[in-house]
Amino acid sequence: MYIDQASAQDLQAHLAELEKQYAEIQSAKLNLDLTRGKPNSAQLDLSNSLDGILTGSYKAEDGTDCRNYGGLDGIAEAKALFSQVLGVKPSETLIGGNASLTLMFQSVAFAHLFGVRGRDSAWANEGEIKFLCPVPGYDRHFGICEELGIQMIPVAMDDKGPLMDEVESLVKADPCIKGIWCVPRFSNPTGIVYSDEVVDRIARLGNIAGANFRVMWDNAYAIHALGDDAPQLANLMDAARRHGTEDSVLIFGSTSKVTFAGSGLAFMGASEENLKHFKKHLGMSTIGPDKVNQLRHVKFFGDLDGLLQHMSKHAELLKPRFDAVLKHLEQGFSDSDLGSWTVPEGGYFVSFDARPGLAKEIVRLAGEAGVKLTPAGATFPYGKDPEDKNIRLAPSFPSLDDINKTMEVFTVCVKLASVRQKLS
Amino acid sequence: MYIDQASAQDLQAHLAELEKQYAEIQSAKLNLDLTRGKPNSAQLDLSNSLDGILTGSYKAEDGTDCRNYGGLDGIAEAKALFSQVLGVKPSETLIGGNASLTLMFQSVAFAHLFGVRGRDSAWANEGEIKFLCPVPGYDRHFGICEELGIQMIPVAMDDKGPLMDEVESLVKADPCIKGIWCVPRFSNPTGIVYSDEVVDRIARLGNIAGANFRVMWDNAYAIHALGDDAPQLANLMDAARRHGTEDSVLIFGSTSKVTFAGSGLAFMGASEENLKHFKKHLGMSTIGPDKVNQLRHVKFFGDLDGLLQHMSKHAELLKPRFDAVLKHLEQGFSDSDLGSWTVPEGGYFVSFDARPGLAKEIVRLAGEAGVKLTPAGATFPYGKDPEDKNIRLAPSFPSLDDINKTMEVFTVCVKLASVRQKLS
Repeated sequence: MYIDQASAQDLQAHLAELEKQYAEIQSAKLNLDLTRGKPNSAQLDLSNSLDGILTGSYKAEDGTDCRNYGGLDGIAEAKALFSQVLGVKPSETLIGGNASLTLMFQSVAFAHLFGVRGRDSAWANEGEIKFLCPVPGYDRHFGICEELGIQMIPVAMDDKGPLMDEVESLVKADPCIKGIWCVPRFSNPTGIVYSDEVVDRIARLGNIAGANFRVMWDNAYAIHALGDDAPQLANLMDAARRHGTEDSVLIFGSTSKVTFAGSGLAFMGASEENLKHFKKHLGMSTIGPDKVNQLRHVKFFGDLDGLLQHMSKHAELLKPRFDAVLKHLEQGFSDSDLGSWTVPEGGYFVSFDARPGLAKEIVRLAGEAGVKLTPAGATFPYGKDPEDKNIRLAPSFPSLDDINKTMEVFTVCVKLASVRQKLS
Repeated sequence: MYIDQASAQDLQAHLAELEKQYAEIQSAKLNLDLTRGKPNSAQLDLSNSLDGILTGSYKAEDGTDCRNYGGLDGIAEAKALFSQVLGVKPSETLIGGNASLTLMFQSVAFAHLFGVRGRDSAWANEGEIKFLCPVPGYDRHFGICEELGIQMIPVAMDDKGPLMDEVESLVKADPCIKGIWCVPRFSNPTGIVYSDEVVDRIARLGNIAGANFRVMWDNAYAIHALGDDAPQLANLMDAARRHGTEDSVLIFGSTSKVTFAGSGLAFMGASEENLKHFKKHLGMSTIGPDKVNQLRHVKFFGDLDGLLQHMSKHAELLKPRFDAVLKHLEQGFSDSDLGSWTVPEGGYFVSFDARPGLAKEIVRLAGEAGVKLTPAGATFPYGKDPEDKNIRLAPSFPSLDDINKTMEVFTVCVKLASVRQKLS
């Protein structure tokens, strides 16, 4: 259906049909949820042997008793394994607690309040601090900035990553821009993978911006491909080393969507100098991470091969769910002017762009038909999508059957909202 | 030996003897450590069955899948159990990650930077903020204040707790005093237990101070008695309820010295209103605590009785170590003017007061004889003991044999430093 080319009469007929379909859906009193990027229980089952895997042996390779205090940055064997996910050296790796969000919050908060190289370097000293936010993006990144009073500047993305001409000229023009949020592989929510050129240009930002600028590289889906052919991401730290900007990049990851969400490990890759300063402040707020859980994870995976084999089991469980969402989008909108979407090869989301001005209305319609969608605007700083068109779909958690039901509702809601708008 | 009454000749003879003893100790090339309040491996063994205790069952009582995201304040059964340790209602309990230090840091940081009741109530708005610090106290509390730029005012303690006349008059006089650090049972390092009257007066501080004042009640050793007859601590939240000051108290605890240090649970007791505001900020920096580990702990203890029985096994392992330290102090100094010490009935420390001006020298002498002691001054804000006399002894970790060797060295060092000082 191309509603821009349809006659008023055709649109009225469509509308009547869609209103009828919507009423039928409402009468079914559904209760479905497509909001959260969280693993389904079959995925979680893959890691059930974690509890008990230590069989009473709590010693790390170097003799550390993981049950006791000590070690602010994690055990050596966890660094050795997860540094490979981050793409940094083990000496550039910190293994934290259960949330990379915490490491990111701390990184920004410490830099802002306490400085990246001592008190004098605190961002807060320099006036109104700003961050670049490629959009659509991840609401929890934006939450960190809001919490700390850091102003956010949205930057558009295409299928290669943030528009780097814009990024570079903004950074050149304003020394109060201290960082940029990136989800570089299977970006949340568009699923795109940053191109090699974009990665290289991001590594060079440290030479354009001031010394205290930091790239917040949230590689949350580093190993979360849906198939073997998914595009690879260039190594940011390697690029930074080439350009002498190692201190300008902070790389994050976790096993939240690898083992147990909330009971996994978070990790951070950073230059040794950055880690040294980070740990000074970290040590004021914690006695160290849960080393027992780190030991469990290392024993569970063995090595990087073991980890990647584990991830292919996740892909087997996730692929059909993504396919179902995409099939409905294809059937509903491929031959239309009602919306566009991404076909991600990994990650946890499908991003749908409706006709401008309709995202909120579609989410409302779906909600009133018993289908919960991520609030419109959530993928933009301050919750404000300037075109009110982006909707994030999260297919990982519901059953295939529920996804099919949800997407039927979604399709009707998009069409209904679009035709109503056109006629109004 | 009363050196104040000894003749110069006697002192010289003593000195010669002590120098000889010290030289002998030095030649033994010891490598001993009495610095850290951490559990010994026999204590840690008590909890070895934690890993594997879930036997594949990851569901909480209310059906929550503990392996997945969700739940910022912990699972219901953990609240039910550990609220009893805190002495608050389950609805006033938050179960966090592995470090109560983190909950304390966050409580102070959120209040200081973001406010206890929205941005307008941020302490930082009110000028130079101060905390009362009963001394000697815990260095990591002081570290939180230093990190956040909060000025510390030391307050003396006696065997009933902080000197409350002084505390009250300070709080009355200065609205910039926003908090007080307390380790109320088996205080770190003196081991004293706050008297009922002190607890009641602390609960009343909320009526003297402004609305944003907070008592930081670090009940780290709530259930860490060395015997059944150890003095009980009055319930702070009950007292606060009587005085209508529930919002002025924040209560902390953990299982760091109950199960595994670093892989246990931390918890916080606070009014529902305080928790509500705390969680708003907490949610910006974490996706929630490790619920799987919470489930393990609940299953491990069963109920409060199980927990207390577990603690009596710790007492069995710790009591002989404390006795050894006290025996050496008794033998070395009971009939002397060389120092005084506390006889704690729980907790992790023995606090020794040398003659003024000698703590640093004693720690130095011990260090050069291969015995590491907690740095002198560590128990005071900014690391500065105004009388340079307090030394914290931590007997939990070393073997009995090592404690005996350490205390022999300690005794000689105290005597040597004292006689040298007297003769100088």
